[in-house]
Amino acid sequence: MKRTKAVVIIGDGMADRPVPDLGGRTPLEAADTPNLDSVALEGECGQMDPIGPGVRAGSDTSHLAILGYDPFKVYTGRGPFEALGIGMAVAQGDICFRCNFASLEGDLTLDENGPFSGAKVVDRRAQRISEGTQELAEAVDGMSIEDVTCYVKESVEHRAALLLRGPGLGPGASDVDPHEDGHAPHASVGADEESRKTARILNQFTLRSWEVLRGHPVNERRQAEGKLPANIVLPRGAGIAPHLEPFADRHGMKGAAVVETGLIAGIARYLRMTVPEVPGATGGADTDEFALAQATLRMLDEHDFVLCNIKAPDLGGHDSTPQAKVAAVQKVDRLVGRLREKCRADIHLAITADHCTPISFGDHTGDTVPLAICGPNVRPDSVQSFGERAVMSGGIGRVRGSDIMAILTNLMGVQEKFGA
Amino acid sequence: MKRTKAVVIIGDGMADRPVPDLGGRTPLEAADTPNLDSVALEGECGQMDPIGPGVRAGSDTSHLAILGYDPFKVYTGRGPFEALGIGMAVAQGDICFRCNFASLEGDLTLDENGPFSGAKVVDRRAQRISEGTQELAEAVDGMSIEDVTCYVKESVEHRAALLLRGPGLGPGASDVDPHEDGHAPHASVGADEESRKTARILNQFTLRSWEVLRGHPVNERRQAEGKLPANIVLPRGAGIAPHLEPFADRHGMKGAAVVETGLIAGIARYLRMTVPEVPGATGGADTDEFALAQATLRMLDEHDFVLCNIKAPDLGGHDSTPQAKVAAVQKVDRLVGRLREKCRADIHLAITADHCTPISFGDHTGDTVPLAICGPNVRPDSVQSFGERAVMSGGIGRVRGSDIMAILTNLMGVQEKFGA
Repeated sequence: MKRTKAVVIIGDGMADRPVPDLGGRTPLEAADTPNLDSVALEGECGQMDPIGPGVRAGSDTSHLAILGYDPFKVYTGRGPFEALGIGMAVAQGDICFRCNFASLEGDLTLDENGPFSGAKVVDRRAQRISEGTQELAEAVDGMSIEDVTCYVKESVEHRAALLLRGPGLGPGASDVDPHEDGHAPHASVGADEESRKTARILNQFTLRSWEVLRGHPVNERRQAEGKLPANIVLPRGAGIAPHLEPFADRHGMKGAAVVETGLIAGIARYLRMTVPEVPGATGGADTDEFALAQATLRMLDEHDFVLCNIKAPDLGGHDSTPQAKVAAVQKVDRLVGRLREKCRADIHLAITADHCTPISFGDHTGDTVPLAICGPNVRPDSVQSFGERAVMSGGIGRVRGSDIMAILTNLMGVQEKFGA
Repeated sequence: MKRTKAVVIIGDGMADRPVPDLGGRTPLEAADTPNLDSVALEGECGQMDPIGPGVRAGSDTSHLAILGYDPFKVYTGRGPFEALGIGMAVAQGDICFRCNFASLEGDLTLDENGPFSGAKVVDRRAQRISEGTQELAEAVDGMSIEDVTCYVKESVEHRAALLLRGPGLGPGASDVDPHEDGHAPHASVGADEESRKTARILNQFTLRSWEVLRGHPVNERRQAEGKLPANIVLPRGAGIAPHLEPFADRHGMKGAAVVETGLIAGIARYLRMTVPEVPGATGGADTDEFALAQATLRMLDEHDFVLCNIKAPDLGGHDSTPQAKVAAVQKVDRLVGRLREKCRADIHLAITADHCTPISFGDHTGDTVPLAICGPNVRPDSVQSFGERAVMSGGIGRVRGSDIMAILTNLMGVQEKFGA
């Protein structure tokens, strides 16, 4: 059999629950989606649990599963994926943290083995500081503590990531972030020998971040303006950057990811997939869906597998705006339409979502997402349109995100036989 | 989004296979169940494998799975659950056994390392002794052997449970019960160092049970009446009481169990769920379903999650009485009717069974059981009624007992997200 290529289109957070403002339909059911429907009509449909039935998936865990990596094995905490998401060069074994720039009041001291005393956090988000965080991050980036280097990079608003690189570090270090205002930072505690080293470094880093930032020009300016200073970095969510076999080794083919968000781009780069720049892909409701389609088509020239994630539907879910989500779904539909118009008939095309982001909930839920796959080797079922409920009677039944690569590589004719 | 509460109604053994006497319908299909049907109509339906496809579940393993505990990990033998079922205060690490009071003939001796000799079991069930077992159990209860205490409690008829509590005991001890009449008790053998200690204690306990019981007044009376004496305790089915994280810690919410059988009550207490007394809940075909509904409603006031098990349908299955099972199913229907009439519209309600107990088989089978869930966050499917076959086309597809808590906590809005 001839080998074929495959494309997976992921409408980020595209699945939903019935919406009263849409007459009890979901955005997918309410939107005009002739192209998605044609994939369902010509192909085979079903429901997918990104992680498992009822499990609320993140975009990171879901994409890992869909790309063939078991998140229960490789995901120890958000830290490494947060760092990947903002473009840090994460390497296997790095210990990573999510951080806030926060406002501390008082004179911080740290006893040999903790605790922190003499000061308390007055705003964990430094009034959601939006300017100057790049300078603040640069001021504490690259610090050496013992034989460990501490890398810091700012993210949006008050958020940042911290990466510890050095020998003998473990991920079992508790949070410095006290998780509510009015408390001193918590001295991190390690669960084992290696994590105790991490905790020790982390506490030192926290103290030194305050020593460096409290007199930083950005904070002098903020205080002159009557604002709280962003004078300390509070890490939380320790995770170790896992060993992930490169996508090409795992699946025996070249893969590319056409994506809009830093988090998914970071994961794809970590898997050494090709991640092209896509001018016009804003990651917002105004993104250029045709640019995403064009990039996907371009990647298909030299890759066997392309994953394309369009972020817009998720925004409508998080913002609880039905019409915006319907419009975003129609963007996904046009993206798929352009792809089908331009690409060879012998590819396999899968349409799905990485999780549900119901308008009624405003965040990810663990409901199933619809899945449709068309292409030359599919056995078409009787489903006529693409939607959460239309696919329930489809031939694929109910599968998991972690099944997707096997299903696709089987259709593509590129999978090794298991047995004789 | 607002958090909601959830109720799971379990019709014990309610699922079945087609019954010729019911015109090829199952009891669920034959019964008049307007309330169960309304849940199916308004909600989402599917099939559930309590443990896995085709696996014959016990009520204990099924309830463990449904409550979010993997029975393959925590279930080493029936002993601990039998002991829980009859109200013994089982603690983590206890080694528990199911036992029979049996009739032994001859003069029992035990060599240092076994075997038993000089006597044989003439009736493993002591003619299904029905009176005096409480006195017999008390006579052998509380015995000390080495540094281990042996607790015994009677169950129904000839049955009892034995619990060994002490340091350094393992669960890998073979049965003393020879499993057929005409043999001497088998000297227990341990599979490892700790289980060898268990076996040694167990053999001593067995010998001493005979020494204590052979002259017991209950047995003198039996022999005067021409009956066989119940003069020895024969343990089997060693299991270690597992570490089970309390329900509230596992799921982050308060849970209650409104149940009729000792076994399920024991499991719920072990998980530190609230288990109320329910006057009128007999565990029989005559149980007061409205009392169960009332207790469930009362528990809902102060708990987020209530599991309610009604035993009646299982009895009709075990007894192979179609009309009795149909009547029991209608009791379940009335229970659900009362609940829906009285409880707030914003709870999630799941209806299912813990296993199939087909009339044609008279015991549990590994067929799927139907599942229906209604409530504000469900995506209703096209299923119109509740029954083994009606739910096959439902939107839930086919899930496992161990998926239920994730599915419900997702709908309830109380589940942590896995990832970012």
